[in-house]
Amino acid sequence: MTTQLTYGMVGGGQGAFIGAVHRMAVALDNKARLVAGALSSTPERARASARDLGLAPDRSYGSWKEMLEGELKRPSSDRIDFVSIVTPNDTHFEVARAFAAAGISVVCDKPLVHTSAQASELVQTVAKSGVVFAVTYNYSGYPLVKHAASLVRAGKLGTIRKVFVEYHQGWLATPLESGGQKQADWRTDPARSGAAGAVGDIGTHAENLVATITGLEMESLCADLTTFVPGRRLDDDAAILIRYKGGAKGTLTCSQVCVGEENNLSIRVYGTEGMISWRQEEPNSLLFQPRDGVRQVFTRSGPGVGPEAGRATRLPGGHPEAFIEAFANIYRGAIDAIAAKKAGAKPEGLATEFPTVRDGARGVHFIERVVESARKGAVWTDAKFTG
Amino acid sequence: MTTQLTYGMVGGGQGAFIGAVHRMAVALDNKARLVAGALSSTPERARASARDLGLAPDRSYGSWKEMLEGELKRPSSDRIDFVSIVTPNDTHFEVARAFAAAGISVVCDKPLVHTSAQASELVQTVAKSGVVFAVTYNYSGYPLVKHAASLVRAGKLGTIRKVFVEYHQGWLATPLESGGQKQADWRTDPARSGAAGAVGDIGTHAENLVATITGLEMESLCADLTTFVPGRRLDDDAAILIRYKGGAKGTLTCSQVCVGEENNLSIRVYGTEGMISWRQEEPNSLLFQPRDGVRQVFTRSGPGVGPEAGRATRLPGGHPEAFIEAFANIYRGAIDAIAAKKAGAKPEGLATEFPTVRDGARGVHFIERVVESARKGAVWTDAKFTG
Amino acid sequence: MTTQLTYGMVGGGQGAFIGAVHRMAVALDNKARLVAGALSSTPERARASARDLGLAPDRSYGSWKEMLEGELKRPSSDRIDFVSIVTPNDTHFEVARAFAAAGISVVCDKPLVHTSAQASELVQTVAKSGVVFAVTYNYSGYPLVKHAASLVRAGKLGTIRKVFVEYHQGWLATPLESGGQKQADWRTDPARSGAAGAVGDIGTHAENLVATITGLEMESLCADLTTFVPGRRLDDDAAILIRYKGGAKGTLTCSQVCVGEENNLSIRVYGTEGMISWRQEEPNSLLFQPRDGVRQVFTRSGPGVGPEAGRATRLPGGHPEAFIEAFANIYRGAIDAIAAKKAGAKPEGLATEFPTVRDGARGVHFIERVVESARKGAVWTDAKFTG
Amino acid sequence: MTTQLTYGMVGGGQGAFIGAVHRMAVALDNKARLVAGALSSTPERARASARDLGLAPDRSYGSWKEMLEGELKRPSSDRIDFVSIVTPNDTHFEVARAFAAAGISVVCDKPLVHTSAQASELVQTVAKSGVVFAVTYNYSGYPLVKHAASLVRAGKLGTIRKVFVEYHQGWLATPLESGGQKQADWRTDPARSGAAGAVGDIGTHAENLVATITGLEMESLCADLTTFVPGRRLDDDAAILIRYKGGAKGTLTCSQVCVGEENNLSIRVYGTEGMISWRQEEPNSLLFQPRDGVRQVFTRSGPGVGPEAGRATRLPGGHPEAFIEAFANIYRGAIDAIAAKKAGAKPEGLATEFPTVRDGARGVHFIERVVESARKGAVWTDAKFTG
Repeated sequence: MTTQLTYGMVGGGQGAFIGAVHRMAVALDNKARLVAGALSSTPERARASARDLGLAPDRSYGSWKEMLEGELKRPSSDRIDFVSIVTPNDTHFEVARAFAAAGISVVCDKPLVHTSAQASELVQTVAKSGVVFAVTYNYSGYPLVKHAASLVRAGKLGTIRKVFVEYHQGWLATPLESGGQKQADWRTDPARSGAAGAVGDIGTHAENLVATITGLEMESLCADLTTFVPGRRLDDDAAILIRYKGGAKGTLTCSQVCVGEENNLSIRVYGTEGMISWRQEEPNSLLFQPRDGVRQVFTRSGPGVGPEAGRATRLPGGHPEAFIEAFANIYRGAIDAIAAKKAGAKPEGLATEFPTVRDGARGVHFIERVVESARKGAVWTDAKFTG
Repeated sequence: MTTQLTYGMVGGGQGAFIGAVHRMAVALDNKARLVAGALSSTPERARASARDLGLAPDRSYGSWKEMLEGELKRPSSDRIDFVSIVTPNDTHFEVARAFAAAGISVVCDKPLVHTSAQASELVQTVAKSGVVFAVTYNYSGYPLVKHAASLVRAGKLGTIRKVFVEYHQGWLATPLESGGQKQADWRTDPARSGAAGAVGDIGTHAENLVATITGLEMESLCADLTTFVPGRRLDDDAAILIRYKGGAKGTLTCSQVCVGEENNLSIRVYGTEGMISWRQEEPNSLLFQPRDGVRQVFTRSGPGVGPEAGRATRLPGGHPEAFIEAFANIYRGAIDAIAAKKAGAKPEGLATEFPTVRDGARGVHFIERVVESARKGAVWTDAKFTG
Repeated sequence: MTTQLTYGMVGGGQGAFIGAVHRMAVALDNKARLVAGALSSTPERARASARDLGLAPDRSYGSWKEMLEGELKRPSSDRIDFVSIVTPNDTHFEVARAFAAAGISVVCDKPLVHTSAQASELVQTVAKSGVVFAVTYNYSGYPLVKHAASLVRAGKLGTIRKVFVEYHQGWLATPLESGGQKQADWRTDPARSGAAGAVGDIGTHAENLVATITGLEMESLCADLTTFVPGRRLDDDAAILIRYKGGAKGTLTCSQVCVGEENNLSIRVYGTEGMISWRQEEPNSLLFQPRDGVRQVFTRSGPGVGPEAGRATRLPGGHPEAFIEAFANIYRGAIDAIAAKKAGAKPEGLATEFPTVRDGARGVHFIERVVESARKGAVWTDAKFTG
Repeated sequence: MTTQLTYGMVGGGQGAFIGAVHRMAVALDNKARLVAGALSSTPERARASARDLGLAPDRSYGSWKEMLEGELKRPSSDRIDFVSIVTPNDTHFEVARAFAAAGISVVCDKPLVHTSAQASELVQTVAKSGVVFAVTYNYSGYPLVKHAASLVRAGKLGTIRKVFVEYHQGWLATPLESGGQKQADWRTDPARSGAAGAVGDIGTHAENLVATITGLEMESLCADLTTFVPGRRLDDDAAILIRYKGGAKGTLTCSQVCVGEENNLSIRVYGTEGMISWRQEEPNSLLFQPRDGVRQVFTRSGPGVGPEAGRATRLPGGHPEAFIEAFANIYRGAIDAIAAKKAGAKPEGLATEFPTVRDGARGVHFIERVVESARKGAVWTDAKFTG
């Protein structure tokens, strides 16, 4: 057996949602185990959560700073190999920077940080320390997303002309936050969520999905943001027109007020030679159609699906895989890279089958440009990312 | 039997496509029969086409002007009750105006005319002469479109917030027109098609579908038009952001370069209380979901579908109906109105289960505002229609 | 124009359902027109129905016998070219035999007749008189059914191993007939419907669909018939295991008590080299998958669909076609054959793009064998058809 | 934290498939951890596999007997709480009996054993020892299967009339076993697989799914088994008609030669008042239709889905869950029961949210009756289960 890595977690205690998802994602492949945690911003709740998860008392920390100090005091052979940051967005920056600077690899939830300046600093910190840094744009972990990207790279779509990407939810169609729902509360609070609401929470997933599959780079965008629910302080809906380098055009819409929708993330890409269409809620099939050919439906582990998807799948065809497995693929990629680094591989030699700090930085830049366009009245705004 | 009406056709001869569709749509209900025609702009072809269709030689006309004159010379009891205009867009105006002015009812293909000025004049002509005037926005004839509209009117969606409408085709992804394909040829020629390509040909269908279902009125729009195929003179793709009166927002995209797509017209409407989703290529089901309720799928003649749809259907549930029946519903509505008028009903008493000249005029206005927005660089442009 | 044929109709008057479908199907292509009718078994209703349809008084007959006599008295140039028989099953035999024997071509609804003996006699009558005889197994008229058959014939499925065919409805889940619903009434009455209920009404469609697509011949069958609704006199449900010549096996189920189902007719065929799957309620796509290849979805007028389907389609891809068009294809095939015969073609030279009297006879034989198997306790029963 | 349980595994070493699935299913909830193993019938491979999984050398056993002895020698506080049996079918009986008799709880793959006599003995052994015994009919673990069952129990379907269940695969359409494919090899070998091929491997899943959802008890059945692939020694296809107590009827088909199918397990149930339809390959939605009501689509965590499904789900709606989670639900149920027993609960007080040894015995009885019916020529055969 390759030795299991160990990791700590910041956030994700009692009452949180995404922390448990991260832990299941790691558990699935058994390549790392949770040994330390600063699981809540409230020390008591942090410790209670650590007990729930069976952490040793001496690695149950009251804050991320205690955890960083505590782990650094341990011999490096008995120190966490990486930290998972699953807190609301506003704390990502200082936590991630501190761990990265201290030489501990990081897996961080998205959006990465609040500002491009923070993102730049983080990119530099990572470059300097050489740690592995993954951002959990989890939808990029789906096998058929990887296959879609490989079809694009193989030229099966020709030159891309049009991209339609959507992420539509309905759970914030009413002012849930005023009733104290925890998930709604921080996501609609600018102090914790950042400059954008829906755009930051789900629009960035859409941005990342386009980049992952197509590799297209934005040139400019025109964003119309709306806050439909009275009293809400951030956008809960966005419609964005995008122009890409090379002439392709895109439409990105995201909304949290589309009643009846759950996590309806979908992408369609049309090129001169073919098209693809994929939908997150039914992730085990991918539609592909060559320009003058018959419609084809790739199934996750079925005929014609290449090694990129193959490496990201755990079950035979027809045994559906879903969200957790995609999430686990991000972790597996990061853990493999961390293990390789530990075993002496050079950073440039590391496999990067996961979104990196640079992807995270580009997401932050995207949010900023969208907010800027909207603030000026939904006008065309430069969106080139040179980070 | 209610006596059959009679009609004449302008355009739709040998080599045309849509004329045959109009004739099938009329034939389905047997409420009118074709007795006269100026079926081509080339007199010889017009006459040959008339022979194919079994028209009497004395009502086989070489031009629409001959036909108008010829019919007016006949006793009114033996004159066509209406004319179907199925020519390329550039001739709609003068033909429709002449017949309407002469007191002959009109069914005209869309887009109605080339300019708002023409549209206004036509609206006035129709008002003055009192004829019935239908525009074949055929998708509004689908039973479940009528049911969708009735759900909106009944308040099942609450206040509408978001509208997504798409009409994506792929047949013009290559320069078909340069090979002389007749349908591609005139649609990409500004002289015949008008100021817009995809927007005029299919975007207007999308505009009409939104208006039919939601009743929303546009306030402003921001339109990014693209010509993807080199050498083409009109847009073959459009992405349009729309702001409606009352705060709803919409995204309307249409494209003729989405390879793999056939006639993928779809609409999704989200309100404060519920949503609907419908797709033209599978027209026999309609998705509806109340905000906190279970997803519901209405089937065309199934439980819960009201009389608006019921009147528009000919078969029991599960016997699928499709494009021709929807088209026939426009004609049946128009023919019933013409027959009622003939029987003495006042214009204001006429059933109007079909798009009227005013709907046609609004479509023309929409095209103009889109082209204006795009011309200025895809900027927000007033789009109120007061016609 | 090829001269229009003329036809008469037996049955299909006021209150009937299928007669109107037949008339729409003929009207769609305008290749024949209704000129005579004995539209009801009640002479007064027959005449009233004829008036509704605008028939000339002298060809509005009080009974099919009057109609046969009346038409035979007319000069052959002014006589109906064929008769459509759309009455309940019990009268098909004598009407069809009489017209066929008199040299008038026949289009007859299914199931053809009540007994194999009648079917044999009818086959002989047709052979002797040389008339065209079509049976409206309308589902065989769908373009993608024709394409499916062509894939089988082209060997794309290899040797067929398994066939699953279903026709599930729910409308007879309650004793509708006791409330006097006309359609339910005669279908559940052995005197009019014949020896079987669901099997005759819809099971025969399933049998025909299998034969049309696969060409397989039955060897034996084991049929479990059920009458679920108390008091009903005929089966409203059947499950039938079938063994075909050459080793293929099939499952045919039909039911009228599957609540929630409308006209859910579907077929799946699996061979050594590939499979196909098609469903009547969404008739514009056909799934095909080669053994180790990617799933393919043929669309009605899309790439890869051959001339058999092409001839059976009227609209470009994405403009959905449905039930009426499939029905019209049966009529168009029959009318073309009748016209060809009239123009002097030899019977063996007639195109037969429609189910013939022999298909009808095979359907009757199928019903008999099913009823026999069930009567004996659902035991294996010889089902070879040598008619 | 509830203390983690520990478990051992028999089978599931290098080259095996299902063992890894069992381990992932346990890992997901972190409620038990693997500490011992006899992972292969070849001792060397068993030890190598144990090393891969990081087992301690003293709990890496060369055979299941060694493991049983070894664990029994340990203090009970440090003994495995249960054993997972994931070997081919032929060894289930002796392994399961030995562990159960020794007081160690068991999770066993299906089909349970080879004969009803063995099953009976096992049921008695379990009754005597009082251990928890779960059989991994994993499809019963899907949340919407639980919801379907709750709809039936709540009377939403009324009296059940018809059940259609299918499990269609295509992977054995060619003689894979002759090429030495390990999964194909033992499944087509009567010595290891038992008296049935497809029926034992997947038909039993279908049988269990019907029982789980409907609670119906079989009265008799008529089974036509086929071996399509030349040289194969067991059935690779079955079509089975079933009569249930109370008058319901069913069709169960399973096949491993349906090319193009992956794991197409589906069930449709029709009652007097409503119907349900569910398909394993898209497990996050369930169709329900009341007799005269609108079609409803339940989504896994959406509105209207009750607590039975709620307890079996880990993610918010729209984040799809799939095969692994369903499998994990079986384990979680068993582990909770084992932990409760350990904490002193009486057997009758144990939650049984998982298939038990009695379900396993009924599955074996089903296989026997099917094989008996087929052997006699596909005749009706008593199928009552009184075990």
